[in-house]
Amino acid sequence: MKGLIDPDLLFPGEESTRALARGLYAEVSGLPIVSPHGHTDPRWYALNEAFPDPAQLLIVPDHYVFRMLFSQGISLEMLGVPTLDGSPVATDGRAIWRLFCENYYLFRGTPTRLWFDYTLSELFGIDELPSAANADRLYDHVAECLARPEYRPRALYERFNIEVISTTDSALDDLDWHARIRDSGWKGRVVPAYRPDAVVDPDFQGFGTNLDKFGEITGADTGTWTGYLDAHRSRRAYFKTFGATSTDHGHATADTANLPQNEAAALFDRVRLGKANADERRLFRAQMLTEMAKMSLDDGLVMQIHPGSLRNHSPAILAKFGRDKGFDIPTRTDYVTALKPLLDVVGLERNLTIILFTLDETSYARELAPLAGVYPALKLGPAWWFHDSADGMRRFREMTTETAGFYNTVGFNDDTRAFPSIPARHDIARRVDCAFLAGLVAEHRLRENEAYELARDLAYGLAKKAYRL
Amino acid sequence: MKGLIDPDLLFPGEESTRALARGLYAEVSGLPIVSPHGHTDPRWYALNEAFPDPAQLLIVPDHYVFRMLFSQGISLEMLGVPTLDGSPVATDGRAIWRLFCENYYLFRGTPTRLWFDYTLSELFGIDELPSAANADRLYDHVAECLARPEYRPRALYERFNIEVISTTDSALDDLDWHARIRDSGWKGRVVPAYRPDAVVDPDFQGFGTNLDKFGEITGADTGTWTGYLDAHRSRRAYFKTFGATSTDHGHATADTANLPQNEAAALFDRVRLGKANADERRLFRAQMLTEMAKMSLDDGLVMQIHPGSLRNHSPAILAKFGRDKGFDIPTRTDYVTALKPLLDVVGLERNLTIILFTLDETSYARELAPLAGVYPALKLGPAWWFHDSADGMRRFREMTTETAGFYNTVGFNDDTRAFPSIPARHDIARRVDCAFLAGLVAEHRLRENEAYELARDLAYGLAKKAYRL
Amino acid sequence: MKGLIDPDLLFPGEESTRALARGLYAEVSGLPIVSPHGHTDPRWYALNEAFPDPAQLLIVPDHYVFRMLFSQGISLEMLGVPTLDGSPVATDGRAIWRLFCENYYLFRGTPTRLWFDYTLSELFGIDELPSAANADRLYDHVAECLARPEYRPRALYERFNIEVISTTDSALDDLDWHARIRDSGWKGRVVPAYRPDAVVDPDFQGFGTNLDKFGEITGADTGTWTGYLDAHRSRRAYFKTFGATSTDHGHATADTANLPQNEAAALFDRVRLGKANADERRLFRAQMLTEMAKMSLDDGLVMQIHPGSLRNHSPAILAKFGRDKGFDIPTRTDYVTALKPLLDVVGLERNLTIILFTLDETSYARELAPLAGVYPALKLGPAWWFHDSADGMRRFREMTTETAGFYNTVGFNDDTRAFPSIPARHDIARRVDCAFLAGLVAEHRLRENEAYELARDLAYGLAKKAYRL
Repeated sequence: MKGLIDPDLLFPGEESTRALARGLYAEVSGLPIVSPHGHTDPRWYALNEAFPDPAQLLIVPDHYVFRMLFSQGISLEMLGVPTLDGSPVATDGRAIWRLFCENYYLFRGTPTRLWFDYTLSELFGIDELPSAANADRLYDHVAECLARPEYRPRALYERFNIEVISTTDSALDDLDWHARIRDSGWKGRVVPAYRPDAVVDPDFQGFGTNLDKFGEITGADTGTWTGYLDAHRSRRAYFKTFGATSTDHGHATADTANLPQNEAAALFDRVRLGKANADERRLFRAQMLTEMAKMSLDDGLVMQIHPGSLRNHSPAILAKFGRDKGFDIPTRTDYVTALKPLLDVVGLERNLTIILFTLDETSYARELAPLAGVYPALKLGPAWWFHDSADGMRRFREMTTETAGFYNTVGFNDDTRAFPSIPARHDIARRVDCAFLAGLVAEHRLRENEAYELARDLAYGLAKKAYRL
Repeated sequence: MKGLIDPDLLFPGEESTRALARGLYAEVSGLPIVSPHGHTDPRWYALNEAFPDPAQLLIVPDHYVFRMLFSQGISLEMLGVPTLDGSPVATDGRAIWRLFCENYYLFRGTPTRLWFDYTLSELFGIDELPSAANADRLYDHVAECLARPEYRPRALYERFNIEVISTTDSALDDLDWHARIRDSGWKGRVVPAYRPDAVVDPDFQGFGTNLDKFGEITGADTGTWTGYLDAHRSRRAYFKTFGATSTDHGHATADTANLPQNEAAALFDRVRLGKANADERRLFRAQMLTEMAKMSLDDGLVMQIHPGSLRNHSPAILAKFGRDKGFDIPTRTDYVTALKPLLDVVGLERNLTIILFTLDETSYARELAPLAGVYPALKLGPAWWFHDSADGMRRFREMTTETAGFYNTVGFNDDTRAFPSIPARHDIARRVDCAFLAGLVAEHRLRENEAYELARDLAYGLAKKAYRL
Repeated sequence: MKGLIDPDLLFPGEESTRALARGLYAEVSGLPIVSPHGHTDPRWYALNEAFPDPAQLLIVPDHYVFRMLFSQGISLEMLGVPTLDGSPVATDGRAIWRLFCENYYLFRGTPTRLWFDYTLSELFGIDELPSAANADRLYDHVAECLARPEYRPRALYERFNIEVISTTDSALDDLDWHARIRDSGWKGRVVPAYRPDAVVDPDFQGFGTNLDKFGEITGADTGTWTGYLDAHRSRRAYFKTFGATSTDHGHATADTANLPQNEAAALFDRVRLGKANADERRLFRAQMLTEMAKMSLDDGLVMQIHPGSLRNHSPAILAKFGRDKGFDIPTRTDYVTALKPLLDVVGLERNLTIILFTLDETSYARELAPLAGVYPALKLGPAWWFHDSADGMRRFREMTTETAGFYNTVGFNDDTRAFPSIPARHDIARRVDCAFLAGLVAEHRLRENEAYELARDLAYGLAKKAYRL
């Protein structure tokens, strides 16, 4: 083995099945990356500046990394995670990096370990596992690489063989960075996705002010239900001018509603005035999923629903460090009854695509595959978040394929803000899918030529098609 | 490989384990089929007429087939699924068949694919996968077969080596087709199963009228609770004269109740008069499961409980095409508290057999195996419906065996109305079980001679014993 | 194969992976047993008397054994399980043993089978599977062994290579047997664990009297909230003098609460006077988990939470035979919201260890691993009860490792009162873990030297560290 990644990574040990997996992987490993859902910063592609030091790029912003270290007693301050009140945290990238390397053993068996191994090896040419002994040396090496032009965002985009990548952007975002990318003459394709949580969720911080701003930037009257819906329509159209093909919705549950429009308008009024109680606010969010689906039917934007995370489980961490600090915990999520109001309206539409994600694996075989296996409007998003891992992706295939087939799924989402890890994530997904297909062929459930066709679809074709990219 | 089915279908790739699986399968592949639960039409065996054209036999009535095609945008009308109001649908079997063949790739990785491959190959001698190119040729070939006497129902029953098959029949059915089969002199054993939903579920269409008819055909006074129970007793006895050994109950939940008889009688009065509210109707269904269990203790009929499907999820499809159109979706199902009232009454009875099914795989290891592993009256039915698939059946064994053992399970149910697929379904179940047993032997958790004994029991013995056939 | 246990038991069939598993297992199979949670009787180690006849030692007290036999129609009376009212049951050990041997086939595929095979083979030198034919011979052989000095409790403790074993003891226990062990001069290390259910759960039999006794033995005023808390503090300190390092809490749910102390005091008053309703009693239990956690933070006792069993499902069995007769059934268990009040108080503490167990495997990947993967105070206990089985332990690793890693788990608990089976249980856990690690190495997700380190940690190091032993 050269480097940290064995050519047979994630392939089955049994020889003939492994040979099948190798063959399939050889077919797809070089395909371009289609990244239809993620959280990279469009600023990077617009400015094309060098990335900061190794720790600020690879450790400090990665919640997978710091949550594991935190669980073992290392404070977020020592890891350089910024505090809301500006109270001091570690800023010495080298010290943070060393702390990480010393504790690299904690990640054994996790996807973070694989992503990191892959990134160190394939991007930085490192062939040693991080440790206390080599921490400084690795730091210097990575830092030296990052200073070079070929490690700038656009160069990496090209090196990673990315064909198109979607960012995720607030409905209130002016998309200025996207405009700069577009106007720069660079050939990279970076598209936004419409994420309206800030103007759809009454519990979102600054909701009232957000609606005011939403009115200003769209010229619609967000003081009325119809004006508010117009604002969405207008903003979605604006996003489309930058190449957006999708919307994204991160609700606590998958609840949907289908109120008569006069009731929806009355509900909006209470919400708008800040008079809605918890049940009404919940109902409003539910109603808005259905409204968004109806708009998608009109304007062709693919709708993504990402429900089921209980955000900011620790109030102490939220108060001190803010959101997205590793304390979002999955919860039991119902789809069958929750989605019914929305599906009653648009579920049978063939020209609509709604992609469902879950953090509750029990819903794969019981609810999601049976739903996506019959409703033309529904497709299954890939294994998400904690389940975007080798075993998690394997379970996704094992528990959805028999009922939903492959063609009601949409390929891989890297869903990451960790730009350097994108090739690692796609590579691992491709390996897992190839291993899964190889297993089907080995058990004579599929013919080899079918597996080759499927391997290409799962790695590339389905994502392009489902996301209309 | 000759035909579409490899001799090693579903066996593990690893050589020594595969050899074990082959050996076990050789032992059981020729055993007669015991089919204790299913939905074939007794009319077929009674009249023994030729089956209709390939599409009407194999595509149009199969909800697994048309739900997948529908999910990918093909209308039910184009697939020939009849509308309730008689509005036109495709009737050209050849065109429907072609549509199916063109889209055969959608079934990759699904049990439908395996059942279809098996049926085409083993029943019709076809060795090509269906495709646009060969659709017409395959259609002609299958049509030609179906016209021949050896493809008539009784000939197939014999060719399939069926020892006994149960149909599922409404409590209101006169069992006339069963009478004709019995009186025909044919040796095939086709028995009914008592399915009283139409006279037990107050929400069943025509419930009041059904009870009137129930009274007429039994001579009992179904205007009173005791008369109503007598009607059940009478009808169960009638079914037994046709060889019935079981009852079947398809409730939305596994809820049971154990009311004092005077309260049950009062509840019945309200239900009978159509005055019961939703909670009362639910309670009535719950009470009736317990009543049915008590009758089973008296008359020896094996009781089957099939809960947890949310029927007719799409109101638009229900309105246009009616029930059973692929829109029944599994839901989370509780057993531990739901079954307690019933189990408090009859759970410790050794001479009673209640077979539990689930659509919620999370209940296997958590609830069903622990319950069946201690209550003498309980047994576990096999993986059901969406889970009657290679991976589904594997998960069933993996998640029930360690707590419930093999002998608290009851072998395989094909549960199908797709008569030609019956050998495929039993064959696949046998293969999965042999592969599972081979794995236990390979890991030295079981001795080979024990695996042979178990293989026969799982394929044949347990079903006969549990269903008293 | 000599004996009943193949050297490759539970190792994968594929040759190169099996070789890896063998190597790892060779490294750990001889390590001492650390048994940080279990239910052996301290009286055994104190008196060091010969164990009674084979049936009384191996069959009659083992709920795994008698529940399976009962499920197949064998009465508990015939198995010698004592009745509460003293009505007669079988007392002839030989007859009970014979009944068991005749039905040994029922245990195929279960952990009981493996534990029994291992015990017969490794402890008693038997190389035949029990059967009707050899039942008497085996009985005589085992009985003869048990009469020998090398089969007495202390000799077995040493032969089993136990380094330390924890019992589980009521808060009201005087720990007299532990005192005798300590004073005996024997080198064995047997420590108690503080289990306060009898004085924490208002529904516990004799709760009021228990609190009176709790006051007497601690000298605290258990008529007041503060006195009651003092009694706990005092008793925990007392347990620590006997080497206790942990507490254990077996609640029906994982609910916790964090009331202001004045409200908690008022709640205690109602509970103390027997005036609390069901909701208040539930709230009191929830509050007490948080109080216990706070005390653990002060005194360093590791806290174990074992929720989710619906105890005594059959009232008839409870009335006739009492508790712990195989009728405890797992239920759906929520952790994410249930534990939040407790975690809000102590979840971020690095010097506190709370070990979570579950009977609901759906919580592994969805809730427990994400929680333990971020909260410093949380660790995951091993697969518990029905899930302490080869496939259960495998699923535990597959569903927790990617999110929580290995180092947020705590090694193995045998959790048993079946003393002779302790080596079997640890051996099987070690084998399963070695097979799991071998799989990771075979898939190149882990390096071999890391797997060796992990194998030792999982078999030995993590339990010592987490339980502070």
